[in-house]
Amino acid sequence: MRKFTYLQPGKSAIFKDQYVTKVNECLVPYSQGMTAEIGLIGLPFSKSSISLSQAEDAPKVIRGCLGSYSTYSGEREKDFNEQLILDYGDVLTHPTDIDGTLERIFISVKEMIHTKVCDRYIMLGGDHGVSYPSIRAFHEAFGRIGVIQWDAHHDVRNLEDGGRTNGTPFRSLIEGGYLKGEDLVQIGIRDFSNAKIYHEYAKEKGITVYTMNDVELTGIQKIVEQELERLSQQVDIIYLSVDMDVVDQAFAPACPAIGPGGITSRELLSSISTAMKYKKVKAMDIVEIDPSKDIREMTSKLAAHVMMRFMFV
Amino acid sequence: MRKFTYLQPGKSAIFKDQYVTKVNECLVPYSQGMTAEIGLIGLPFSKSSISLSQAEDAPKVIRGCLGSYSTYSGEREKDFNEQLILDYGDVLTHPTDIDGTLERIFISVKEMIHTKVCDRYIMLGGDHGVSYPSIRAFHEAFGRIGVIQWDAHHDVRNLEDGGRTNGTPFRSLIEGGYLKGEDLVQIGIRDFSNAKIYHEYAKEKGITVYTMNDVELTGIQKIVEQELERLSQQVDIIYLSVDMDVVDQAFAPACPAIGPGGITSRELLSSISTAMKYKKVKAMDIVEIDPSKDIREMTSKLAAHVMMRFMFV
Amino acid sequence: MRKFTYLQPGKSAIFKDQYVTKVNECLVPYSQGMTAEIGLIGLPFSKSSISLSQAEDAPKVIRGCLGSYSTYSGEREKDFNEQLILDYGDVLTHPTDIDGTLERIFISVKEMIHTKVCDRYIMLGGDHGVSYPSIRAFHEAFGRIGVIQWDAHHDVRNLEDGGRTNGTPFRSLIEGGYLKGEDLVQIGIRDFSNAKIYHEYAKEKGITVYTMNDVELTGIQKIVEQELERLSQQVDIIYLSVDMDVVDQAFAPACPAIGPGGITSRELLSSISTAMKYKKVKAMDIVEIDPSKDIREMTSKLAAHVMMRFMFV
Amino acid sequence: MRKFTYLQPGKSAIFKDQYVTKVNECLVPYSQGMTAEIGLIGLPFSKSSISLSQAEDAPKVIRGCLGSYSTYSGEREKDFNEQLILDYGDVLTHPTDIDGTLERIFISVKEMIHTKVCDRYIMLGGDHGVSYPSIRAFHEAFGRIGVIQWDAHHDVRNLEDGGRTNGTPFRSLIEGGYLKGEDLVQIGIRDFSNAKIYHEYAKEKGITVYTMNDVELTGIQKIVEQELERLSQQVDIIYLSVDMDVVDQAFAPACPAIGPGGITSRELLSSISTAMKYKKVKAMDIVEIDPSKDIREMTSKLAAHVMMRFMFV
Amino acid sequence: MRKFTYLQPGKSAIFKDQYVTKVNECLVPYSQGMTAEIGLIGLPFSKSSISLSQAEDAPKVIRGCLGSYSTYSGEREKDFNEQLILDYGDVLTHPTDIDGTLERIFISVKEMIHTKVCDRYIMLGGDHGVSYPSIRAFHEAFGRIGVIQWDAHHDVRNLEDGGRTNGTPFRSLIEGGYLKGEDLVQIGIRDFSNAKIYHEYAKEKGITVYTMNDVELTGIQKIVEQELERLSQQVDIIYLSVDMDVVDQAFAPACPAIGPGGITSRELLSSISTAMKYKKVKAMDIVEIDPSKDIREMTSKLAAHVMMRFMFV
Amino acid sequence: MRKFTYLQPGKSAIFKDQYVTKVNECLVPYSQGMTAEIGLIGLPFSKSSISLSQAEDAPKVIRGCLGSYSTYSGEREKDFNEQLILDYGDVLTHPTDIDGTLERIFISVKEMIHTKVCDRYIMLGGDHGVSYPSIRAFHEAFGRIGVIQWDAHHDVRNLEDGGRTNGTPFRSLIEGGYLKGEDLVQIGIRDFSNAKIYHEYAKEKGITVYTMNDVELTGIQKIVEQELERLSQQVDIIYLSVDMDVVDQAFAPACPAIGPGGITSRELLSSISTAMKYKKVKAMDIVEIDPSKDIREMTSKLAAHVMMRFMFV
Repeated sequence: MRKFTYLQPGKSAIFKDQYVTKVNECLVPYSQGMTAEIGLIGLPFSKSSISLSQAEDAPKVIRGCLGSYSTYSGEREKDFNEQLILDYGDVLTHPTDIDGTLERIFISVKEMIHTKVCDRYIMLGGDHGVSYPSIRAFHEAFGRIGVIQWDAHHDVRNLEDGGRTNGTPFRSLIEGGYLKGEDLVQIGIRDFSNAKIYHEYAKEKGITVYTMNDVELTGIQKIVEQELERLSQQVDIIYLSVDMDVVDQAFAPACPAIGPGGITSRELLSSISTAMKYKKVKAMDIVEIDPSKDIREMTSKLAAHVMMRFMFV
Repeated sequence: MRKFTYLQPGKSAIFKDQYVTKVNECLVPYSQGMTAEIGLIGLPFSKSSISLSQAEDAPKVIRGCLGSYSTYSGEREKDFNEQLILDYGDVLTHPTDIDGTLERIFISVKEMIHTKVCDRYIMLGGDHGVSYPSIRAFHEAFGRIGVIQWDAHHDVRNLEDGGRTNGTPFRSLIEGGYLKGEDLVQIGIRDFSNAKIYHEYAKEKGITVYTMNDVELTGIQKIVEQELERLSQQVDIIYLSVDMDVVDQAFAPACPAIGPGGITSRELLSSISTAMKYKKVKAMDIVEIDPSKDIREMTSKLAAHVMMRFMFV
Repeated sequence: MRKFTYLQPGKSAIFKDQYVTKVNECLVPYSQGMTAEIGLIGLPFSKSSISLSQAEDAPKVIRGCLGSYSTYSGEREKDFNEQLILDYGDVLTHPTDIDGTLERIFISVKEMIHTKVCDRYIMLGGDHGVSYPSIRAFHEAFGRIGVIQWDAHHDVRNLEDGGRTNGTPFRSLIEGGYLKGEDLVQIGIRDFSNAKIYHEYAKEKGITVYTMNDVELTGIQKIVEQELERLSQQVDIIYLSVDMDVVDQAFAPACPAIGPGGITSRELLSSISTAMKYKKVKAMDIVEIDPSKDIREMTSKLAAHVMMRFMFV
Repeated sequence: MRKFTYLQPGKSAIFKDQYVTKVNECLVPYSQGMTAEIGLIGLPFSKSSISLSQAEDAPKVIRGCLGSYSTYSGEREKDFNEQLILDYGDVLTHPTDIDGTLERIFISVKEMIHTKVCDRYIMLGGDHGVSYPSIRAFHEAFGRIGVIQWDAHHDVRNLEDGGRTNGTPFRSLIEGGYLKGEDLVQIGIRDFSNAKIYHEYAKEKGITVYTMNDVELTGIQKIVEQELERLSQQVDIIYLSVDMDVVDQAFAPACPAIGPGGITSRELLSSISTAMKYKKVKAMDIVEIDPSKDIREMTSKLAAHVMMRFMFV
Repeated sequence: MRKFTYLQPGKSAIFKDQYVTKVNECLVPYSQGMTAEIGLIGLPFSKSSISLSQAEDAPKVIRGCLGSYSTYSGEREKDFNEQLILDYGDVLTHPTDIDGTLERIFISVKEMIHTKVCDRYIMLGGDHGVSYPSIRAFHEAFGRIGVIQWDAHHDVRNLEDGGRTNGTPFRSLIEGGYLKGEDLVQIGIRDFSNAKIYHEYAKEKGITVYTMNDVELTGIQKIVEQELERLSQQVDIIYLSVDMDVVDQAFAPACPAIGPGGITSRELLSSISTAMKYKKVKAMDIVEIDPSKDIREMTSKLAAHVMMRFMFV
Repeated sequence: MRKFTYLQPGKSAIFKDQYVTKVNECLVPYSQGMTAEIGLIGLPFSKSSISLSQAEDAPKVIRGCLGSYSTYSGEREKDFNEQLILDYGDVLTHPTDIDGTLERIFISVKEMIHTKVCDRYIMLGGDHGVSYPSIRAFHEAFGRIGVIQWDAHHDVRNLEDGGRTNGTPFRSLIEGGYLKGEDLVQIGIRDFSNAKIYHEYAKEKGITVYTMNDVELTGIQKIVEQELERLSQQVDIIYLSVDMDVVDQAFAPACPAIGPGGITSRELLSSISTAMKYKKVKAMDIVEIDPSKDIREMTSKLAAHVMMRFMFV
């Protein structure tokens, strides 16, 4: 029963082309009894960031960007308008208790997985610190986990100097026994952006590292293919961890640790598409986008496209 | 039934002090059977603007700003957390049919009034062009209408040169017989911001005009008091039309037609409070805020305070 | 007679290297009796835009950017300082009559063509809605018209939902019989940026579509060559319609509908140069630049380079 | 003869209300034989600035702002649409020869005065360094000159440390014998913004100084009145030198040397109006506006209002 | 020994007027054996902030702003160039341990006081959460402490919902027994910016509260005088806590919780000067400036002026 | 002796990972007796710029950006944390004497070289005008000098129109006999960005010119290799002059003369690395970065990477 002629009570009015389904129209709040291909959760936390970051605003902004794109892939001539994305909402963070918040994230991702109604999951950070509790939750639920990490940095800093920051997630995971070095692949590592000791730590633990030079020489799609072939043999599920600062600053201006010489947005998108050919890929996080530093939400729009490549396969 | 520990399915997580009621928590979407002190409607339209304007974004942004303030008035030691604001939503505009959209606004404001469940009404523009259909709707519903217009401009341009623009609402109302010149009071009219012919039109029609010089000499509160006394004798209801460009550009940077020498935000707020002492004041519109031109939503925050002065009396 | 030593009455003073001709120095206001290689007209209209747009400011800004570049091509060692660009000015738009404005654009482009003193024409939008009256005018003057459309979107939306917007120009042209589907080539169509029904409409009408994936695999210069060969056989003149949002958001940040994964500025420029090898190319429009969203006029500077590639051949 | 329906060849199209005269329509390029109330000249020079400044852009921007206001004063119910403003253009500066440029400014202002066709003159800077050659030219043409200087700073720095900068104009004038200390009045001098030695220099030379505290206690209009009474007795003409940084940073954000605690825009405007009651006031410069630092051209809009108060009396 | 002609090894080159002492030249790093009128310490911490804040950047930015002003007061004709400001540096914060960082602040302020070589102290926040450890340290060193708090908010939130945030410092101080309610004065409390329960808490604890309405009616200088008279009778030392959001958003745009209707920068500065007439005023903090949200460092420049009013008496 | 627990007297506090050496930690102010691989000098001068430029701010900003990167090259698995960079500071410029400042730069670069304690030198501009005195100083110290110039422009304008500006350095060097045309290589010259006469001047003088088209066809690394082979045979030392506007505007938004169609940041960085394989490369300047026009210091960050490629070999 709709009693007004041009009013939808309590809603903003937006022009609607009756034939277009926007991606955000596929988002429905989770409620019991529903099933879906994709589960989505926001991890709006960046107080664990070493440098100042407002990455905690990213989940809201990225969700908003989904409203700018449609569900139809012209490349594959396929419409995904029927696909459902269950939105589990955002984890309630604590203003002053950082360890407590990381624990809340762990619990919430676990609870989401335990609803057992989705095929694949997207976690929207937040800074890279959220990957520690998130991957830990997937490990606990699914067993041996392989990770492809798009990143300019190793993120295996020591834990003494600053506790569990956005520089430590993969060290925390390896030290905690939640992830084996041989199951971790880092792509896009950049010169003059890491310390020697952490590079050596990576090698020591058996982490596979591809620098930007490797990307230039071998091509990112080829790298992704060969590593996913390998991981698919040895792990139970594969988790993509996309630290947006792997992308060149011109294409992703909103990352706290921007720099030149990174991959292009086309390289990022095509490598995600390549990864999605592998069935064990079940989860992805997107981190290190600080919307307050963005230009016209460019970086969040890139994140939205990364999501669409992951969701619509 | 809430099954997650730290998740509210499908909602963003925001820190909540259990003892604070934010003003936006008083907003509830209209549905049949509800009654409230305030009815709120968005008129997101600015294509009738002579200069470029994104004022159509204002209703959404101003509503958002209500989340920054609480319902408690320390000045009067009174909490308005029980007050309900029925949100009728935004009028659906048409991308290319301007006259049609003005008609939709007229119909929608009328339909809102006809629900007859609110005591007072707030219309959020949009450019000043929306006041024409809005005031017309109130006239039709309530009879003789008095208008206090805070504005740097007369807004009585001719209709030949550009049709019904944001420069013409009060001429349209007077020519259409919906408003008498003697029932219209303009406060804050600024030098070198109007044409001679329109000033003369105002005098000819019996409009009462207070320039900035009058405001400086007499004081805005005194002006408002004496005019509301007068209007209260002769009209059925009083409508406040707040064109935000009455305010000096330093305090309201988001108006399309900014300039120096206007009133301060304190003068605006105290004059609204003064007006609210008069029982016949039943409606208010706030127009000419283009959020894309704002600084940290300052102008929309001022609009939120104008709303609170109007609502919480 | 110049009586002042360092003053040019009534003009701004700008440093001048006596040996450099800036491109804007080639611009002369049209007046009767003049002939030129290029005719230039501004179509400063974006009220037909679905989303908010200030693209109506673009003609002025792009003209200004011509002052940053010189007439000399070092690549070809050729100076175009003798070339004249007749500036027909901007079409006077109406503040509230959108259909009337589209008609004014049609009439003005037609009147420009009928002066019959230019070899090629540049139309500066405005949103993409202006291409409908503009191409219609060329069709009427020259007969069967071929169009190469650089665009992320098909722009063939239905006309019921919003009238003639910036999403409908090519549908309006095809339905109106001004353009045949087989004479229209769309390059750079992007995933998740169009609806299924419009993709199917394009196929049904015989429009030739190249997606971004096609651009990556085949190369944009090759695509342009083969399509211009084909069109040159079947049409009377060829019109280039450059919707700037075909370019990746990093290179063209000012487009209302920005997104990642588009073509680079080098790809755009080289493809225009390739197109200019074909004699039937006689007209070009550049649309969907909203200068208020730009960074240092980057997108308008790119437009200026597109113009120079078109003009100086 | 106008052959196009909606085109004005070679001009941008702007909406025109037939009954409104915008102030910039009163501007006409100077040519021999014309007479006018106001002569206007641009002094686009800020390389003499100690700190980085793009004040050289101000003349163009301020002229543009005149297009936002009309010629009608509602306060006095008087239209100035018949008044002519002769625009002498901008002085051509030299990219690397600073002393040479100051000389060019001197010559140009002198040449403008010598045309002897205007009643009053406006000089648009530029940094405050331009007041030295400008006032010197007026002194040479008219004899003993009185100066009212709105300024947060004394501007009487020594000439050894940096040559003739924007910190030295009044010292240069006094040392050169072009201005007597007793004929100079400084209003709005701010705490912690000057050195002791320059304050003492001011006192020693007989300069009359009003600090911000004086403004608060006495009122700016009263100060201006009493000093203009005094100066009117002793000088031949009076020159107003308005360094915009006298205004509080909230009202004039574009000044290179912004700070809190200055006068408001209302205080500036009313004090100019007060000054214009005195017949000997014949010239005014407006300096230290760097448009690149402005917000929505606020400071230039304030400058435009200062001009209107000076011109339309 | 200086061997280069125009180089100062390892330093940036800045123009220097030999007769001007900039305030930052009075800053010297603390080292043993020195004595000074002012001790300065940075408390660069804002992770305890409820809303996102980069206030931790403020100490560095405000120190930088001191370089824009000179040591000379023209109002009092007194030069403070001999005054020394001992800079104790910034407290080293921890990236993830918030309680630990508050403890570090407490220890550091205490250590600074214990050097016993300064007459007065300035603490530069950070968010308002830093006032808790800072005032606690002063209480411990000096005994009964009186506090004048310039603020739009009471800052006495409950500690359960979010721990010790920037909304709780004065509750923490009162509950901890470090400050008596009767020794706390809050000036500038704004409507719709606090909850009822906290207003009542303030009254209950005997806190003296002045709202904006009180400021308008009584005048801020009078309020400060009468409260300092009273406090001077009952406490050992007086601490000024300046939350910059007491100032209207137009004058202090960088505060996280901006809003209209606050005090002006002139009112803030004159009230600080008034306070400095009382001998027991020994300490001041300035908090809640987020430089990333500022316009041209306006708010930090205001903070610099607040410092100068405090230091140079 | 460090007596405070968490305070470093007089310093800002920054988080420090004990295992990471940031590049700026290698910077030490020059003092007698020290030796180092790299000598660094700032040439903060841009008053010789034709268009407005604040490039004089670049040396400070670029130095700051070194703090964002570490000394470790993962590509080569080599840590350069032992390498010293002697910082000679910035040349003191004169506010009004431009020729005098160019002479000061010449003297200062010469004095730096004459300390004879560094192996290679970096000069940070400023505008391109500083390359004239800088290269002249190297010529005088080392003999025949070869120059690789990354640039969109020839920079060989005539000296009559504007004196020695940022458009003239290479003409000044050639005319002065400090550099032979055959020893100068220009890479990245862009279409419509130069005048015919200067292109011809370049050819006439034997300058080797590579346009953007050459870069696309041949590849920038190959070009650099073949030219350095050639120069290495004929000159004593090689100087790299990096005008940042060679880079596409999307990657280097802070250059005064931005434009589309330039090289990417990856192309710039790889070409610098290629150049560093040649032993005669001893000096580099980086010019034409105006930090006030930058986005998040992107262009300065690119400059920092250029420095690291030059320093760490």
